[in-house]
Amino acid sequence: MNKLLIVGTVAFDAIETPFGKTDKILGGAGTYIGLSAAFFNLQSAIVSVVGDDFPQEYLDLFTERNIDISGLEVVKGGKTFFWSGRYHNDLNSRDTLVTELNTLADFQPKVPENYKNADVVMLGNLHPIVQSSVLDQLESKPKLVVLDTMNFWMDCALPELLDVIKRVDVITVNDEEARQLSGEYSLVKAAAKIQAMGPEYVVIKKGEHGALLFHGNNVFFAPALPLEEVFDPTGAGDTFAGGFAGFITQSENVSFENMKNAIIYGSNLASFCVEKFGTERMVGLDKKEVVSRLKQFKSLTQFDIEL
Amino acid sequence: MNKLLIVGTVAFDAIETPFGKTDKILGGAGTYIGLSAAFFNLQSAIVSVVGDDFPQEYLDLFTERNIDISGLEVVKGGKTFFWSGRYHNDLNSRDTLVTELNTLADFQPKVPENYKNADVVMLGNLHPIVQSSVLDQLESKPKLVVLDTMNFWMDCALPELLDVIKRVDVITVNDEEARQLSGEYSLVKAAAKIQAMGPEYVVIKKGEHGALLFHGNNVFFAPALPLEEVFDPTGAGDTFAGGFAGFITQSENVSFENMKNAIIYGSNLASFCVEKFGTERMVGLDKKEVVSRLKQFKSLTQFDIEL
Repeated sequence: MNKLLIVGTVAFDAIETPFGKTDKILGGAGTYIGLSAAFFNLQSAIVSVVGDDFPQEYLDLFTERNIDISGLEVVKGGKTFFWSGRYHNDLNSRDTLVTELNTLADFQPKVPENYKNADVVMLGNLHPIVQSSVLDQLESKPKLVVLDTMNFWMDCALPELLDVIKRVDVITVNDEEARQLSGEYSLVKAAAKIQAMGPEYVVIKKGEHGALLFHGNNVFFAPALPLEEVFDPTGAGDTFAGGFAGFITQSENVSFENMKNAIIYGSNLASFCVEKFGTERMVGLDKKEVVSRLKQFKSLTQFDIEL
Repeated sequence: MNKLLIVGTVAFDAIETPFGKTDKILGGAGTYIGLSAAFFNLQSAIVSVVGDDFPQEYLDLFTERNIDISGLEVVKGGKTFFWSGRYHNDLNSRDTLVTELNTLADFQPKVPENYKNADVVMLGNLHPIVQSSVLDQLESKPKLVVLDTMNFWMDCALPELLDVIKRVDVITVNDEEARQLSGEYSLVKAAAKIQAMGPEYVVIKKGEHGALLFHGNNVFFAPALPLEEVFDPTGAGDTFAGGFAGFITQSENVSFENMKNAIIYGSNLASFCVEKFGTERMVGLDKKEVVSRLKQFKSLTQFDIEL
């Protein structure tokens, strides 16, 4: 089985949406990426950090899914990264209420020995210096390196972000972040400029409006599944990235054609993530549901015009 | 050849976008629908009204495209409907600067005799009483009646709008209008409620984010083509509707499967419309370009996951 190396936060989240609120629950980019990628036939490891307030049941959740947590550092006497946010009524925007970095503030990622030759590396949204440090520790060039980032790093650590962007094959950002990073309003122009920064593939996430994949002059579009109710968007982007990276890892094929499928798998998994609070839906999801919804994606977009 | 009956404004527009501004140019929903539908193999007629300030060259534009204008009333001494608007920088919103109804204020549509048995009727955005009056004049039930409307009529003539909505097969509205009409934020729920008002098919236009077609529990999604530059969105929704109705008229097939193709044709034609000011791009467009861009739509959305 191929190896997927994941770096990303493992965290506590407290979430408010128009539908309710949670206490501290499991969250973090690394968590969502890991749970999503676990739907594929692969080996994975999460590199991250938590405090010793992090419950054993959450650690068990990873190991039950064959996610290697030898690179998940547990800091004695430390506290786990905590984020709290409140979504607006449209669920498209949110206010951050609390960010406590805690153990994340001094995080030095350590890649497990047997993942230094990972086939695919998924750099979840984190300080770009942490993302670079993971790449520095690798002993062989991965087939694919995927990076997710956000506007915060464009505001606060742009030189470091540009450094790590140079080193990756695929970048995933949302539409506003693509515009900020490139200075272009048109997403077509934005993607071209971002490609010139390094990544051969640019994925632009548009939330409920789907996702675009750009590669040279090629474009592919995956819709988001129209849902009766979006309950909690937390983790949807990370779940998308985990599905994308997981499918690529399993299939060992880094062509543009195969990345189309990876984007569909990512969108498919993200469509489940938003149906319940936090990781609840992903934890309860089974593979049959995933396959069944892929059929919906197919009927949603496939048409039959003779050309 | 099958017959498409179009009712909609024929107008003067003056448009400002971040890229420039125009004097009074040809505009109106009926105009865009007619020009778009003319790319298909069909007979069409526009029912509308103008003043005698309306230039012969614009009338010629219609007749050159085999659009019957015997139902386009020219009011002696009257002035043509005039709209002026200014788009914001994102081109997704606009301010109306001037609306002069002129001859449109007293418009009584008269369906030409040989279109009273039209195969397909496209009711462009107009007062719902005018839309109803067109249906009242028909002598046989069309294969398909498509209605486009907007928030203005929901605000000012809701009972009349609900009356005509009951009588149509397909309604096209944008996402905000679907929410207003249904009182539901979720577009899936909105579409279900609107179907319960009468139309078996609900098309929700999302501008640069594409369009959704709902029918019972079936959903189809057509993306908008990602463009380097959107120059002027005026008429895009009408061009979309004209492409949709035109394709259905030509193909004589009102199944959900065929409507998928119609939605793609509509999106395809709309993607040209926005590339220049007003009707300029549609007037200069040739069929080869249309077919060539259909291939782009196919590669944009088609994927190959074995299920």
